[in-house]
Amino acid sequence: KNFQSNLPGNHISHYDLNKLKSTPRAAYNKERILVLSPISRFYNEYWANLLKLTYPRDAMELGFILPRTAEGDEALKKLEKAIKIVQTGPKDDRFAKITILRQDNDGLESQLEKDRHELSVQKERRKNMAIARNSLLFTSLSPYTSWVLWLDADIIESPPTLIQDLISHDKPVMSANVYQRYKNDKGQPDIRPYDFNNWVESEEGLRIAENMADDEIVVEGYAEIATYRPLMAHFYDKNGDVNTEMQLDGVGGGAVMVKADVHRDGAMFPPFPFYHLIETEGFAKMAKRLGYEVFGLPNYLVYHYNE
Amino acid sequence: KNFQSNLPGNHISHYDLNKLKSTPRAAYNKERILVLSPISRFYNEYWANLLKLTYPRDAMELGFILPRTAEGDEALKKLEKAIKIVQTGPKDDRFAKITILRQDNDGLESQLEKDRHELSVQKERRKNMAIARNSLLFTSLSPYTSWVLWLDADIIESPPTLIQDLISHDKPVMSANVYQRYKNDKGQPDIRPYDFNNWVESEEGLRIAENMADDEIVVEGYAEIATYRPLMAHFYDKNGDVNTEMQLDGVGGGAVMVKADVHRDGAMFPPFPFYHLIETEGFAKMAKRLGYEVFGLPNYLVYHYNE
Ligand SMILES: Nc1nc2c(ncn2[C@@H]2O[C@H](COP(=O)(O)OP(=O)(O)O)[C@@H](O)[C@H]2O)c(=O)[nH]1
Ligand SMILES: Nc1nc2c(ncn2[C@@H]2O[C@H](COP(=O)(O)OP(=O)(O)O)[C@@H](O)[C@H]2O)c(=O)[nH]1
Ligand SMILES: [Mn+2]
Ligand SMILES: [Mn+2]
Repeated sequence: KNFQSNLPGNHISHYDLNKLKSTPRAAYNKERILVLSPISRFYNEYWANLLKLTYPRDAMELGFILPRTAEGDEALKKLEKAIKIVQTGPKDDRFAKITILRQDNDGLESQLEKDRHELSVQKERRKNMAIARNSLLFTSLSPYTSWVLWLDADIIESPPTLIQDLISHDKPVMSANVYQRYKNDKGQPDIRPYDFNNWVESEEGLRIAENMADDEIVVEGYAEIATYRPLMAHFYDKNGDVNTEMQLDGVGGGAVMVKADVHRDGAMFPPFPFYHLIETEGFAKMAKRLGYEVFGLPNYLVYHYNE
Repeated sequence: KNFQSNLPGNHISHYDLNKLKSTPRAAYNKERILVLSPISRFYNEYWANLLKLTYPRDAMELGFILPRTAEGDEALKKLEKAIKIVQTGPKDDRFAKITILRQDNDGLESQLEKDRHELSVQKERRKNMAIARNSLLFTSLSPYTSWVLWLDADIIESPPTLIQDLISHDKPVMSANVYQRYKNDKGQPDIRPYDFNNWVESEEGLRIAENMADDEIVVEGYAEIATYRPLMAHFYDKNGDVNTEMQLDGVGGGAVMVKADVHRDGAMFPPFPFYHLIETEGFAKMAKRLGYEVFGLPNYLVYHYNE
């Protein structure tokens, strides 16, 4: 690697960030990608989908962070077992590096979908998630990382070319549209929007924020806070071009590709209100404050687990 | 290390952040410390002082970031030469790890003291410094790092026990008082305050910030912005207890000890105005927003180079 030169014996590692690239030809160039997943439950479908991704494994690093709860213990056992199979298997199938962290703050005990989504618990919960994401990011990003893919551990289905597809748009931040499979009224398999954190700012959203106390937050997807923000989830067109891009102001954490320089410049997941936004939504705002553009692909779907 | 367990062949590294400690007995426990220096000029006195520090070398990592300027090229050559001597010398004298980064943004061309301190160039300059510090931090912090010492490369004199001394106070953030040696009117060797970024917020400072446009910043130490903030530099008492602590709201980058968890939770150096503060001053504010206390030692002096 021409951006790295080492003295004998690895006493000193030298990296030239000028020569480190994040390009649409990432797979061909073997640009290093770091796939980061906070994970409280281990789903076989998530792992199977991850293993189907076609990006070169020797340029892929994985990072996980788990809560220190009984649920986290359970997930850790399954994760370690799954990893061991791959990393002791054929050399060509192994990931370049895998890091597992246990959080040092307490996770919320109940992670049932209903409890989890109560507006009142969102602030504490998302602060906790933001700190988890930051711990993972700050400790696993390397001087040679070109790309970071944030992939939630309950994203169980995506095109196998997910990484290349998101990278091909060559944007600082690019978010996929998170849907969910379910059975509709007629008992037929159908799909519906899941993640409402990919959005475009609205007049109303700005007005709400302006009238809030300093440490209040706007969270998207709650009737109590009617922001009328255009949500990427609603822009899906099943006959539309899968490459259609839209500019966003907030992103979720489902499947988001980030050029590593965006993080290296300082963009993290604010655990405190940042322009009245926190966690992944606050991250989008921070990326924009640093001068980067944030995009989403309304017609590019990945699927969230259905509990 | 009991917080880290590896599978054979290093396929997977597992870190439990609960078991990672930052304690006053750091040296005895061999808690890992990361010493980070942005560096545009290499001073022999800085290096000599660094080598005199008595913290166990096998628990010490160093990280440097240099601008991509002619000055940076020059500093890099000297730095590499100095490092090579230590790291190829006796095994017990070697640092555990050394990382050198070259910035990918352009440094300011002129770094003469007068130009550097013009109020008008401060915003751009400090944004650049903030990004440099973030790049260094995000890429060199490890899951096993207990402490981070920010040590500017023009701090040329400190007690050899600097690390243990700052750590002994067991604070999330602890800043030393940066002075400078000079010759006074009578031609006698004397000392004077140098770094005015260690301060306590004032009514006037808050009032100025409140009346500013969103993206304006308050920078300390300029007659144009009279904040009347109590500056730690002025609290030095040569007969006082060297262990006297004072709570701070802003810090400089001269010699600041940070528990690694503060950074891991997300505290970085805002390159954009954060509560009208940027870089190291913004970092202190961010640490406080994350619930950490920030302190300084007015009677504990380190010395800045005198150009
Ligand atoms: N480390 C960690 N991960 C968590 C925690 N809670 C949830 N997660 C994971 O974080 C991601 C997003 O959380 P999730 O609960 O799915 O959010 P939702 O889909 O928006 O309801 C998923 O991958 C979860 O497995 C936690 O307390 N700690
Ligand atoms: N990487 C990097 N370091 C710099 C740059 N400019 C200054 N430094 C270093 O950053 C630290 C603080 O900068 P300095 O100019 O001394 O600030 P001052 O003492 O407040 O005037 C010192 O260690 C400098 O060597 C730059 O453009 N890039
Ligand atoms: Mn989810
Ligand atoms: Mn200086």
